[in-house]
Amino acid sequence: MGLEIMHEFDLIREYFTWPSDENSIALGVGDDSAICDIESGYQLVTSIDTLIAGVHFPESTSASDIAYKALAVNLSDIAAMGALPKYFTLALTVPKVDQSWLKDFSQSLKQLSEQFGVSLIGGDTTKGPLSITISIFGWVESGEALRRSGAQIGDGIYVSNTIGDAAFALWQLNNNDVPIKGCLVKLNRPTPQVDLGRALVGVGSACIDVSDGIEQDLSHILKASSVGAKIDAGKIPLTKVLVDYVKKHNDWSLVLNGGDDYELCFTVSKNNQAMLGDISKRCGVKITQIGVICESVGLEIVGAKNIGKSYQHF
Amino acid sequence: MGLEIMHEFDLIREYFTWPSDENSIALGVGDDSAICDIESGYQLVTSIDTLIAGVHFPESTSASDIAYKALAVNLSDIAAMGALPKYFTLALTVPKVDQSWLKDFSQSLKQLSEQFGVSLIGGDTTKGPLSITISIFGWVESGEALRRSGAQIGDGIYVSNTIGDAAFALWQLNNNDVPIKGCLVKLNRPTPQVDLGRALVGVGSACIDVSDGIEQDLSHILKASSVGAKIDAGKIPLTKVLVDYVKKHNDWSLVLNGGDDYELCFTVSKNNQAMLGDISKRCGVKITQIGVICESVGLEIVGAKNIGKSYQHF
Repeated sequence: MGLEIMHEFDLIREYFTWPSDENSIALGVGDDSAICDIESGYQLVTSIDTLIAGVHFPESTSASDIAYKALAVNLSDIAAMGALPKYFTLALTVPKVDQSWLKDFSQSLKQLSEQFGVSLIGGDTTKGPLSITISIFGWVESGEALRRSGAQIGDGIYVSNTIGDAAFALWQLNNNDVPIKGCLVKLNRPTPQVDLGRALVGVGSACIDVSDGIEQDLSHILKASSVGAKIDAGKIPLTKVLVDYVKKHNDWSLVLNGGDDYELCFTVSKNNQAMLGDISKRCGVKITQIGVICESVGLEIVGAKNIGKSYQHF
Repeated sequence: MGLEIMHEFDLIREYFTWPSDENSIALGVGDDSAICDIESGYQLVTSIDTLIAGVHFPESTSASDIAYKALAVNLSDIAAMGALPKYFTLALTVPKVDQSWLKDFSQSLKQLSEQFGVSLIGGDTTKGPLSITISIFGWVESGEALRRSGAQIGDGIYVSNTIGDAAFALWQLNNNDVPIKGCLVKLNRPTPQVDLGRALVGVGSACIDVSDGIEQDLSHILKASSVGAKIDAGKIPLTKVLVDYVKKHNDWSLVLNGGDDYELCFTVSKNNQAMLGDISKRCGVKITQIGVICESVGLEIVGAKNIGKSYQHF
């Protein structure tokens, strides 16, 4: 089939239909809707996220990286609930039918979906400015989801791995610098912390994924839980390049308001904190306490100057 | 709050949060994901559809009509499965924060969602070229969904109400004609046939909604069911303006390949056909037989000339 004359249904058959061994899918791609069985004892967890070319990724981003990130940010929302990702639907808008682009996009999407055991069960392809919306579905044991609203006074505040790397890579790109590889990987191919989210079920009291920056995202927990918090910027786990950047520029904005990390920020009661060492080992994820939940209103950050402005979507 | 400085979270709170009395929603808008309980004995039915400005609706379309259609086409996908619509998530991309546009959009969305008893449980608002993606969720009694694949040789082929009105309105608009009101309503505010879909559970053998034109959509049923069909164009129910148009122009393209009707096209075995009179009365929907499923491959249409080309998404 030539460019531009490929039909939507051929396109879906060619690029977005692949076998799944997930038993709970009664009907996948190819009808008006998909049908799934939700196992008794579980609740459905669902989220939707859009990536727009030129807004959420530079126009020059590869099809493979775009597909990866579109699914990864959705998996991260499921991870932040402590849920098990199961299925997703894809609404893909492309300006034209570019077979090579679609091939790279679908291969990358398939690879990540297989890595996390999520099945593509439906979608819609439309013509227009490039954008990708994924609607994701997970299962969580009834009543056990990690909500933003569960933080209690005295709980420790934790983050996974390191913070600010993705923002540092973006800062380098914006300054026409060659981004450090490890940071660029965090920007283009963040790892959704699904194993950690699952491990925190019954252990954590509240959880969110760090997508807009730790100051803003932690503030969502505080607001939903009607509590305050005090964090020590000096305790936020940073890679060496970030430590150097902060020292040199006396600027904490990438760390506190950088966003795009897709690490988890979560709270844990004193009683459960002893379990975190084992969880860290089991999940292969560094876990660091950065502060504590307290009665005061709002978020107090000590040890940081020039914290920047939180990410605004508009 | 002024234009352009409204934050995503304020925007969601202001325009896309309204109370719902749906008991199965454990957690709605405002966390990383929404959480729902799917009642035992039901399967989850889900679909996703995108509308792009300038592709799926003229740029001049009102916010209110856009919101209506974005939800209606998704409700129609749920209707075509015979499922009960329950929830939806909204991924809204707007070029700027226009409070008056958002107000009209959200009021219209709320009104239609209340009419059909579906609850908005989450979403994502992003900045970019105007597009609306809705991911919709329904319930259907386990194993009872109306699939495209169930048509059997000898089944009658039926459509609801009249066909071609939306395409006629679009044709009038494209010819700078003032569209006939009834037809324009079908184009901008199609009625999702949810009641009819529900009534066809256990009665119909296959079902699809007519979104791309009856020739193409019926062909999907034939392909999925591995059967053929013979329909009589003269039996397709038309409003008077369509009858006149076909006579005058000797052109069946709007009727057979017009699309955008969102009526249901379905098949019913001989045994169940006697039930359709009661269903028609109960749902307030006209039901007309237009043909029969047969063994031959493909779709044979008698009584029509100049049937046009089926709608291509690319």
